Amino acid sequence: MKSHRSIRKFTEEPIAPELFKQLLLAGQAAASSSFIQGATIVRVTDTSKRLKLAHLANDQQYVASAAEFLVVCADLHRAVQCCEQHGETARPGFTEQTIIATVDAALMAQNIAVAAESAGLGICYIGALRNKPDEVSELLDLPDYVYAVFGLCIGWPDQDPEVKPRLPIEVVLHENSYKKDQDRSVLADYDDVIKSYYEARTENKKSQTWSSQMAGLLSREARPHMLDFLNKKGLLKK
Amino acid sequence: MKSHRSIRKFTEEPIAPELFKQLLLAGQAAASSSFIQGATIVRVTDTSKRLKLAHLANDQQYVASAAEFLVVCADLHRAVQCCEQHGETARPGFTEQTIIATVDAALMAQNIAVAAESAGLGICYIGALRNKPDEVSELLDLPDYVYAVFGLCIGWPDQDPEVKPRLPIEVVLHENSYKKDQDRSVLADYDDVIKSYYEARTENKKSQTWSSQMAGLLSREARPHMLDFLNKKGLLKK
Repeated sequence: MKSHRSIRKFTEEPIAPELFKQLLLAGQAAASSSFIQGATIVRVTDTSKRLKLAHLANDQQYVASAAEFLVVCADLHRAVQCCEQHGETARPGFTEQTIIATVDAALMAQNIAVAAESAGLGICYIGALRNKPDEVSELLDLPDYVYAVFGLCIGWPDQDPEVKPRLPIEVVLHENSYKKDQDRSVLADYDDVIKSYYEARTENKKSQTWSSQMAGLLSREARPHMLDFLNKKGLLKK
Repeated sequence: MKSHRSIRKFTEEPIAPELFKQLLLAGQAAASSSFIQGATIVRVTDTSKRLKLAHLANDQQYVASAAEFLVVCADLHRAVQCCEQHGETARPGFTEQTIIATVDAALMAQNIAVAAESAGLGICYIGALRNKPDEVSELLDLPDYVYAVFGLCIGWPDQDPEVKPRLPIEVVLHENSYKKDQDRSVLADYDDVIKSYYEARTENKKSQTWSSQMAGLLSREARPHMLDFLNKKGLLKK
């Protein structure tokens, strides 16, 4: 697990059906809040839909070229249907339900990712599906109470990129109380580590520290359409 | 991974520090959106805080008795601090950012869970921390732009419960388009499977189908305080 890095270049070799099924079963085996099993995978095998998704996801070509591309959805539609079946009035739209389904989707996806990597496959999460959520929903016919949280490329690696160094463990592991004031020198050292990593890595070299990257990220708007989009899908309304 | 089941009864044996560290490193190695590393773990070793958290989480005693209890937080505070450091004006509060940090927290936690189970440990996610998010935040001194997504109990199992059967794979795996109308007979068969599982399992026997459980769940309010709570924390505002 500690050797994970995103793979963005894949061979043309397909994933054998039995292996693919095992990845999905590993995914389903993850924990689920109240056993709602609030995740649905839309596996995209249609070439034209793949190309459209690659375009919608900021023209990331590996969305089209990976052996498999899964759109991982948070799904409350199925549970709402259970209400209809049992003559109950469904009450979707709570923020809590969206958190539950989003977490369920993430746990399932990470199990798929770990299982895939343990078989020698490579993976890459595609958050950029949230650039154009309306278009993605329409393309895949996603109903109300369902949204595409992210995509997941899976395939046989055709590159061997370096592992990206993570924050020092003491920065993310606090004890009994949240440590508001991190030791600046620890973060400064980490900035040096990341700068060296970006400068030395094989592809997409750049010269940037982690803290400056974050400052750039958090000072920009972040997909400002998401709240309206989710509300329209019947999510996060209350 | 397919043998996962939640463990709610643990022996008193602690987790060796080196193993615990490896679990955390596996957690950190999970993918992170834009490399924001938006998850922070508050490890709760203080007995009095453990007891308070167990009480807040619907009196689940294993929160207090597990060898380790981790509060897994979605964290944008660290990235906001990077803006201050670099003289940028932070723009937190976007729904998208909350999704990113929530997913980061879930991916990290699931890696910790898989690593723990591969070492023979048992785990249990504690979503019930969201019953009393204000109290949890105050107890752990969580700042703005940070919220406790869930807790995670980890310890050596002192029980061996059955694995809970998941939905048939064709219910959660769709191809190219979302299948709105599931085959009712497949779900009816699954209802029978779950009813038999609940009736036969060792502990907490009951007689219920999955669809009736979901109908009960989705027809009730779901932690209706969450939206206001997250807004107050500076999250999900736009």
